[in-house]
Amino acid sequence: MSTHTLPTVTPTLQEFYGSDARLCPCANDQLTLVFSQTREFDLVELEQLLEAVGWSRRPVRRVRKALNHSLLKVGLWRHDPRVPRLVGFARCTGDGVFEATVWDVAVHPLYQGAGLGRQLMVYVLDALKTMGTERVSLFADPGVVSFYQRQGWELEPQQHRCAFWYAS
Amino acid sequence: MSTHTLPTVTPTLQEFYGSDARLCPCANDQLTLVFSQTREFDLVELEQLLEAVGWSRRPVRRVRKALNHSLLKVGLWRHDPRVPRLVGFARCTGDGVFEATVWDVAVHPLYQGAGLGRQLMVYVLDALKTMGTERVSLFADPGVVSFYQRQGWELEPQQHRCAFWYAS
Repeated sequence: MSTHTLPTVTPTLQEFYGSDARLCPCANDQLTLVFSQTREFDLVELEQLLEAVGWSRRPVRRVRKALNHSLLKVGLWRHDPRVPRLVGFARCTGDGVFEATVWDVAVHPLYQGAGLGRQLMVYVLDALKTMGTERVSLFADPGVVSFYQRQGWELEPQQHRCAFWYAS
Repeated sequence: MSTHTLPTVTPTLQEFYGSDARLCPCANDQLTLVFSQTREFDLVELEQLLEAVGWSRRPVRRVRKALNHSLLKVGLWRHDPRVPRLVGFARCTGDGVFEATVWDVAVHPLYQGAGLGRQLMVYVLDALKTMGTERVSLFADPGVVSFYQRQGWELEPQQHRCAFWYAS
C-alpha cells in the first residue's frame, strides 16, 4: 500500500487536536474533519460511536485501561470550535517495532460511504510507520475483508490462520 | 481450554526466577524447568533460541524496545544454579483488558516433543487471564494450526480472516 502524508492543520486546529493532527480529505467542504492522536476522548462518546457501528457497550473503567495500554489511539473529529464531535476511531496494540495489531476501527454510520474509513487506515499506517513498526496485522470480519484487500492488505500471507482463545 | 495453575517453585528457585515463577511439568526428573516473567533475558541468548527454531535474527536494540513494549514476556528456563539456560519463550502484545496477541512462541529443538510448548501456552493463558484479558489471539503458521486447535483455540471464529500490511 502506498501511504502518503495527509495535509497538516492550521495552528488554530493544532490547539484543539495537537501537533500530530492531520486534515482528513472530504468531498463536503462544509465539514472540517481532523485526525488526532492527542485530543482526549470522552469515553462515553467513544462507546456511543462503537455502539452506533454495532458493537456491544463495555465498562468505561475497562475501556480507559485498554486505551492507556494501547500503542496508538486515533480519533477522527468533526471540527466545531465549541463541541468537536468524534465521528471515527481506531486503535492499535503492539510493540512499537516488529508488530502492531489494529482494533476497533469505526466510522459513524452518518459519515460512512465517503472514503473516511480508507483515510483513517492511511493515517493509522502512516503513524505506525513513523514509529518504526515493520508489520501491521488485523482480524477482518467477513464484511470488511474486501475493504482491506483493496487497500493492499495481504490476506493470510504464507497461509497464516488466525486463532482466538476466550477467557470466559 | 481448561487452564490450571502450574506448581509453584521453592524459595530458592524464586530467588532466580521471581515470585511469579512456576515449575514446568517434565517427564525427565533430571531436569528442573521453570517459567518466569521476571528473570531478565540475555538478548543474544534469546535471539539464538529464536534462530534455532528457524527465525531470522533481529537487531538487539530493536528486540529490547519490542520487549519493553510487550504486555507479557515469558521465559522457560532450564535451571542450573550457575547458568540457567533459556529453552523456551513467548511474548504478548495487548491492552491488558480486551485483547492480547501472542508472538514468538518457541521451544528449543532439543527440548521439543515433550509437551513443553503446550505447558508454555497454559502458563501464558493463565498469566493473561490473571491480568483480566478477555480474548487472546494469534496468527498460526500452517504447521502449528493443529497444535493450537488441540488446545482449544478457535480457528477463525465468526469467519474472521487475518490480514497483514508490511512497512517495507
